[in-house]
Amino acid sequence: MEEITVEFEEHIDSLIEKRNFLRLKQILSDMQPADIAEILDEAKDKDILVIFRLLPKELAAEVFVEFDSDKQEFLLNAFSDKELREVLDELFMDDAADIIDEMPASVAKRILKNTDANTRRMINQLLAYPDDSAGSIMTTEYIDLKRTMTVDEALDKIRRVGLDTETIYTCYVIGSRRKLFGTLSLKDLILSPKDAIVGEIMDENIVSAHTLDDKEDVAAMFDRYDMLALPVVDNEGRLVGIITVDDAIDVLQEEASEDIEKMAAILPSEKTYLKTGVFETFRSRIPWLLLLMISATFTGAIISSFEARLAQCIALVAFIPMLMGTGGNSGSQASVSVIRALSLGDIEFRDIFRVIWKELRVSLIAGIVLAIVNFAKLYLIDYLWLHTFDTGAELYEMITICITLIFVVVVAKLVGSTLPIIAEKCGLDPTVMASPLVTTILDAVSLLIYFGIASVLIL
Amino acid sequence: MEEITVEFEEHIDSLIEKRNFLRLKQILSDMQPADIAEILDEAKDKDILVIFRLLPKELAAEVFVEFDSDKQEFLLNAFSDKELREVLDELFMDDAADIIDEMPASVAKRILKNTDANTRRMINQLLAYPDDSAGSIMTTEYIDLKRTMTVDEALDKIRRVGLDTETIYTCYVIGSRRKLFGTLSLKDLILSPKDAIVGEIMDENIVSAHTLDDKEDVAAMFDRYDMLALPVVDNEGRLVGIITVDDAIDVLQEEASEDIEKMAAILPSEKTYLKTGVFETFRSRIPWLLLLMISATFTGAIISSFEARLAQCIALVAFIPMLMGTGGNSGSQASVSVIRALSLGDIEFRDIFRVIWKELRVSLIAGIVLAIVNFAKLYLIDYLWLHTFDTGAELYEMITICITLIFVVVVAKLVGSTLPIIAEKCGLDPTVMASPLVTTILDAVSLLIYFGIASVLIL
Repeated sequence: MEEITVEFEEHIDSLIEKRNFLRLKQILSDMQPADIAEILDEAKDKDILVIFRLLPKELAAEVFVEFDSDKQEFLLNAFSDKELREVLDELFMDDAADIIDEMPASVAKRILKNTDANTRRMINQLLAYPDDSAGSIMTTEYIDLKRTMTVDEALDKIRRVGLDTETIYTCYVIGSRRKLFGTLSLKDLILSPKDAIVGEIMDENIVSAHTLDDKEDVAAMFDRYDMLALPVVDNEGRLVGIITVDDAIDVLQEEASEDIEKMAAILPSEKTYLKTGVFETFRSRIPWLLLLMISATFTGAIISSFEARLAQCIALVAFIPMLMGTGGNSGSQASVSVIRALSLGDIEFRDIFRVIWKELRVSLIAGIVLAIVNFAKLYLIDYLWLHTFDTGAELYEMITICITLIFVVVVAKLVGSTLPIIAEKCGLDPTVMASPLVTTILDAVSLLIYFGIASVLIL
Repeated sequence: MEEITVEFEEHIDSLIEKRNFLRLKQILSDMQPADIAEILDEAKDKDILVIFRLLPKELAAEVFVEFDSDKQEFLLNAFSDKELREVLDELFMDDAADIIDEMPASVAKRILKNTDANTRRMINQLLAYPDDSAGSIMTTEYIDLKRTMTVDEALDKIRRVGLDTETIYTCYVIGSRRKLFGTLSLKDLILSPKDAIVGEIMDENIVSAHTLDDKEDVAAMFDRYDMLALPVVDNEGRLVGIITVDDAIDVLQEEASEDIEKMAAILPSEKTYLKTGVFETFRSRIPWLLLLMISATFTGAIISSFEARLAQCIALVAFIPMLMGTGGNSGSQASVSVIRALSLGDIEFRDIFRVIWKELRVSLIAGIVLAIVNFAKLYLIDYLWLHTFDTGAELYEMITICITLIFVVVVAKLVGSTLPIIAEKCGLDPTVMASPLVTTILDAVSLLIYFGIASVLIL
């Protein structure tokens, strides 16, 4: 696997410094767009413009798509109208729409001014779909065939228009008013006799998405059905665009990052870590920190209300972090397992009782094992060896802690596993129910269980 | 988007019950393999066997691949040797190797006995690659071309062998001893003149993987370079197999699940949530619960050592959960951001100082904001309104807590962001440095900061 090494980057940098553009052009022309964009990312703006102009047109457009929106905006402003049109000509419709979506109004206006009426109409149509819909990630450049065509005619059409479509490997068979009748892979076309009729060899079991379907669900279909492209239809079953597998991968990766961020109490961001400014990072993290800090004062209030009694048996305080921590960890294990299973489609609301029954058994075993280990540790190390317990009430304290552990683990697993399912059923985002919120709820619950059992046995 | 509704499942169940196999065959033959596997998953074993025998051979093999290994084992044992060979004939090499890998020795032996010598040799070769290597997810059925072929000859070869290869959309141009010279997409083949020479139109800038590359890195290349297939070469640059995009998606999804599980202190499992037995789930969760419970006793020991002094100022105890919680949350926000950035390739070890500088600024702003909000809450609500503070030392307590908050957030962000980078540099898994372990370390650190500041100001 080739990687961009530090040495290679330094070599490129020195070529830029020496203004050795001929050699630069040779090297860059043989590289992948994503790698060129990464290397240019560190270069000075004016160098980027010079180097960008060296690249062959198609490659230049591909590199342009890989840049972040700040760099794209800089380049668009630096381009002449002619250069702008050349780059736009090479872009696929979905990429063009994505770029315009990120630009300030003046730049977007200039881009649209430099496209023909037909392209402008299509871009505006793509921009109108909601951000998280299938329509927002589809492209409108695909190959459509008629049912009456022969294989030979179909291949001719592919040769004619293939260069400007995002994929030629799946073709779409449509009738009047673009109604979708079937799909036909280039593989089947190539492997069929030249005089076979498209309508007879096409695949009529179409897996398709609706323009307003959630893009996350649509991306999951690529995982499930191993497709390279998926047709997108409107309410009347008319073909309006296609989604290709590379865009589906992007969605899957973004959604995984978003889930991970939400589980860590961060508001999801679209930029990469180092590209996000300090203030922006601060803003994505402070809401949950504030909310969790304030909700943690409830835990504090619970402790305060037991303050007088705790002062009499201060040894109990030392076990608060362990009990709260174990409760939080047990709960987040269960909630994260359930959330991931929900998002992969492995469980649904109707499975809630199977989940509860499973977590009940798992938590009982786990709670009992933890209690036994804890008792052994308290008895052998703290009591017999270190003599930490010397108040006379030691046995009651040990029993209190071990019983609390079992209850805390069971309650934590049940709360942690059911909250996400209930949240999803209520139309809320189950991921928000993950670690931090569940942990904070469980902190309070664990303490109440602890003090409740302690009140009965000791205080 | 078509989904399997409860009604549809009940309809299928009733057809199975009524033994209406003719209608079943019609319905199932029009469905996607993954959907058929999901529906049959709930059926009785003997029904599965009957229904499986109804399916067209190619579809049957595709459904077989989608089953979990328990169902596959049951079917393999129920098959006659003839049926076994029919299914095996339709499988791609990588799927066959994956299935054999999961079977008990006796079943694996019977499978290998029913394949020809060549297939057996290839399967054994695939089985020999380490579990997390590129070799373990590649297949050996691809289209190879010679440099001297014309486009017409290449297309003829594709028509001849295309049916048995996993993809025909990228072809591989090889020389003597299978040395890889270039790749050629079917798109370029179709769009080139019939008498063009393969060696002249092929793409010589090959993006390839080595058999022993980490499969996670290889899958990330699909995301980066938008490819449909990737050639895998050995030490001598000889082509030994290809990886297709559907397998790359599986790896990306698995890795995301694994990262999420590790961040929640669960040992990763390959099975889905409901398929994993109670004891297995228990086993994947108990190691971390035990480890974290025992390490939490250090936090307890810190509290114990301040016990005598805490008893004098018991009000300080009530703030322990809030301070520890805020420290833990701040730290896991930073560690999770960094871990995801590491796994997406956005940051590397050499960025560590940029990360520290960024987190320092973010944490200072966040810490100060949290301290101000907390002070306002303590002063306005607890002091002026509720009169919770009435010991005379109230101002020192408030200041102690607010200063502690700032220090805790700064330390938490710095520890949380640097530990994963250092772990990766040392060859450890950065994900293990995520939430639970970082949180436990930070619990202890937060307490030490709290008691340290309190000792100076109050105790």
